[in-house]
Amino acid sequence: MKDSAVLLIDCPDRKGLVACVSCLLYQFGANILHADQHQDPEAGLFFMRVEWDMAGFDLEAFRGEFAVMAASLHMRWSVQLLSARPKVAVFVSKTLHCLIDILHQHQVALILGNHLDGEALAKFYGVEFQYFEVTPALKREVEEKQLILLRDSGIELIVLARYMQVLSPEFVREYPNRIINVHHSFLPAFAGARPYHAAFQRGVKLIGATSHYVTEALDDGPIIEQGVARISHRDQVQDLIEKGRDLERVVLSRAVKWHLERRVLCYGNKTVVFD
Amino acid sequence: MKDSAVLLIDCPDRKGLVACVSCLLYQFGANILHADQHQDPEAGLFFMRVEWDMAGFDLEAFRGEFAVMAASLHMRWSVQLLSARPKVAVFVSKTLHCLIDILHQHQVALILGNHLDGEALAKFYGVEFQYFEVTPALKREVEEKQLILLRDSGIELIVLARYMQVLSPEFVREYPNRIINVHHSFLPAFAGARPYHAAFQRGVKLIGATSHYVTEALDDGPIIEQGVARISHRDQVQDLIEKGRDLERVVLSRAVKWHLERRVLCYGNKTVVFD
Amino acid sequence: MKDSAVLLIDCPDRKGLVACVSCLLYQFGANILHADQHQDPEAGLFFMRVEWDMAGFDLEAFRGEFAVMAASLHMRWSVQLLSARPKVAVFVSKTLHCLIDILHQHQVALILGNHLDGEALAKFYGVEFQYFEVTPALKREVEEKQLILLRDSGIELIVLARYMQVLSPEFVREYPNRIINVHHSFLPAFAGARPYHAAFQRGVKLIGATSHYVTEALDDGPIIEQGVARISHRDQVQDLIEKGRDLERVVLSRAVKWHLERRVLCYGNKTVVFD
Amino acid sequence: MKDSAVLLIDCPDRKGLVACVSCLLYQFGANILHADQHQDPEAGLFFMRVEWDMAGFDLEAFRGEFAVMAASLHMRWSVQLLSARPKVAVFVSKTLHCLIDILHQHQVALILGNHLDGEALAKFYGVEFQYFEVTPALKREVEEKQLILLRDSGIELIVLARYMQVLSPEFVREYPNRIINVHHSFLPAFAGARPYHAAFQRGVKLIGATSHYVTEALDDGPIIEQGVARISHRDQVQDLIEKGRDLERVVLSRAVKWHLERRVLCYGNKTVVFD
Repeated sequence: MKDSAVLLIDCPDRKGLVACVSCLLYQFGANILHADQHQDPEAGLFFMRVEWDMAGFDLEAFRGEFAVMAASLHMRWSVQLLSARPKVAVFVSKTLHCLIDILHQHQVALILGNHLDGEALAKFYGVEFQYFEVTPALKREVEEKQLILLRDSGIELIVLARYMQVLSPEFVREYPNRIINVHHSFLPAFAGARPYHAAFQRGVKLIGATSHYVTEALDDGPIIEQGVARISHRDQVQDLIEKGRDLERVVLSRAVKWHLERRVLCYGNKTVVFD
Repeated sequence: MKDSAVLLIDCPDRKGLVACVSCLLYQFGANILHADQHQDPEAGLFFMRVEWDMAGFDLEAFRGEFAVMAASLHMRWSVQLLSARPKVAVFVSKTLHCLIDILHQHQVALILGNHLDGEALAKFYGVEFQYFEVTPALKREVEEKQLILLRDSGIELIVLARYMQVLSPEFVREYPNRIINVHHSFLPAFAGARPYHAAFQRGVKLIGATSHYVTEALDDGPIIEQGVARISHRDQVQDLIEKGRDLERVVLSRAVKWHLERRVLCYGNKTVVFD
Repeated sequence: MKDSAVLLIDCPDRKGLVACVSCLLYQFGANILHADQHQDPEAGLFFMRVEWDMAGFDLEAFRGEFAVMAASLHMRWSVQLLSARPKVAVFVSKTLHCLIDILHQHQVALILGNHLDGEALAKFYGVEFQYFEVTPALKREVEEKQLILLRDSGIELIVLARYMQVLSPEFVREYPNRIINVHHSFLPAFAGARPYHAAFQRGVKLIGATSHYVTEALDDGPIIEQGVARISHRDQVQDLIEKGRDLERVVLSRAVKWHLERRVLCYGNKTVVFD
Repeated sequence: MKDSAVLLIDCPDRKGLVACVSCLLYQFGANILHADQHQDPEAGLFFMRVEWDMAGFDLEAFRGEFAVMAASLHMRWSVQLLSARPKVAVFVSKTLHCLIDILHQHQVALILGNHLDGEALAKFYGVEFQYFEVTPALKREVEEKQLILLRDSGIELIVLARYMQVLSPEFVREYPNRIINVHHSFLPAFAGARPYHAAFQRGVKLIGATSHYVTEALDDGPIIEQGVARISHRDQVQDLIEKGRDLERVVLSRAVKWHLERRVLCYGNKTVVFD
């Protein structure tokens, strides 16, 4: 596979942004593969993603020139090789369907479990597995150990694959917009514990699943993807749980894929997903 | 079209219910067209809907026999001709897309508007239109007039087709499980006012619409039908409103159709919809 | 509403296209509202749509400069005011649900019917209705009259809203990519007559509807939008027809909207839809 | 888990069928958990599925009595314990996502591969794996060996999990309505080879997947389940393949689950799926 570079920009909107960026890329001879931009007129913000072929492209020189322009236009930006995938750690408890999916589709560097259920699968895929018993009393201490392990392993993205523990604000702050969770409801409906039970109780006709970045407020971070499935009065809670499984892994896998392909930008409490 | 009868039953579950009902129908020579039943194991309830051809069927004799059996089995039940459609009134404000759909698909006896926008359409379809100015001060008085009008017109089902007023508990109590509303969100998310604005603010990736029976608690009655549509960061509030329109009229029209075909049974705060 | 201009481009792909276009727009002080581009790597084609605010913009001067650049880059292009909506004619037979939707959502200049069913509705919306009896023997002659009427009325877009006649190749050639049809199946499945009957016969679990530009080959033109709905063994042909109605009008209305907002570009037998 | 029995019936429709079946079950004291029936008025057929608790139920006595009644009513029928799951074999080639899903959700007795890719996974789940090189010259001989293996292993259901070989009519005839395949298109569109390429070529806006029983006619057997996903002009063939994966495994897994729970009845070239 040929390599490509991805430029992500977010900044205050003003005239000429696309012109400036595309002219500089043209000057450097970039062979653009995809380009997409978005303006939020209410927030007055501009977002852009450009992907180009790296063949014969001088990335360092471009980076230098771009930095100067970006500073003058107050851009937050990053430019990275698509081949330089962020290292991924997955947190898991007892339920494994989301983990299975991620292991089949993505490179994973590390699996952390508060139960041992995921260990055999980790071994099968040749991924390091670390077990951490978590109790209310141990929580703080465990999180500190986990943070050290994550740092030492160079982890850049954390995926909570039906991990049944709430991470502390201190932990979350270490990985802003870099922890992806799947919640088994159509957020903001049924945030918190036991959403399928709540959905059953309320008598909804569709159930959902939501992947989102984790913030300090529970189940309230920027939403990346959502899916729904039709249910009926025939479905008991157990049926909801089973039907929900397919939703959960699909919305989680998509979110991970989009993050790794650098398609997601956060602003306020929302996301721009360049597809 | 040939006429058919519909029997609806809900009662405590016990052995032999289907046997008792189907034997009696067999005895009367019913040519069954559709039959469906449902058991809620947690609630210990049984629900059944049977539809049969009326050709040569003695409904009155059946009703008499069935009443005796039903009493002994503690059934709530009704048996009605499908041709005997409940008389429908529609409440409307300024937004007409739901009203248009209902007028095209169903017989409507009466339209009540707190604005005059729906009047021309009512005329076109040959339906009586009554205008009621509603202000906080007038509300009580207006509702009393409306109730008299509805009663005098023999209305059995009220449809709120994007009617922008909240009915009082006193009003709602007069038509239990006989007022259908469409709320422009995926309930229970974004109950209350301006759900599209709230959805935009929250950054959801799917918007929804919900049709439900109106109860005294706002946007909290038994859900009949829900639908969703995909949106993206490109969609502003106005786009959500436009994309939501198709959802609203579809979920409302389906709810009305199912109610008129006597497919909906309520229990607790939920519905059984026999499709 | 403020007015805006839309530039549509399609041309062979090469480096620097976005730079050229965006620089020229910047030079003219365009306040860009939306911009989107697409490259088809296999076909080696480039597509772009830019929309900008017309306040203080000198469209004629821009057009002159752009024409020079476009010629040198072998671009097919158009730039138009969004307010200058193409004039629309709708062809209709006896089924009216699609027509109702279009009349509620769009300005229509002319309705042509091979039955009289749509006339009252046309009158209600204040739109001219012309009746044309169509028989195999009359077809050629009728089409010639229709073409004259359409030309005289300045019609730029023709919408077939469940029009049950096949237009001749001669007719279609007069309006290339400017006739939108809705076919009541998920094309390419069940092209041709009676698709719901065919779907029922085949026992599919989802039915669909497709809006597409009409070409000389029946039901084979570039697809603009498709939708599906779940069905089950319980659904007879009549149920499929009823459930399909909502699909048909939604996919047709969307296609019309996108065409009028100049979001659709055709190439080969496919469409690019800038959303 | 408590055990339950499932009765499946299909026969010519006539009055009193539900009465006869439900009375006999009542007589034997069956505690019914689910019951569902379906009539196809055009075909004049009746279908029924009843599931009841086995606690204290005399299955053999019931079977004897039921057989007499069934014969007089020309019923095709079966009654089986839900715990007596049919033994499953999976055929696989190089693509493993469907196999992974099935192994995670179901008991599998045997995996047959015409490539070795699935072997490690089989080992991980402790399932026997048999490799068969298939070439046009070897095909007949291989199928004979496979049939012997399947017979010796007592296999009752064969699942083709993206198996890239077409089974011969002779093979198919051995397992009528007991071979489930997943085809990666929305059948009947794009039957045959390379459906994603064909879908891309045609420019559809939704792609699909279909699970169906295998018959002697390629991709033409009774459809069990279908799913679709939205695509756009941005998606190249490779994107269609990736987006299709989730559809394929979901529609295949559901079909297998429904078959194992004895929810599927075939008639003509269609299925009744009791949900």
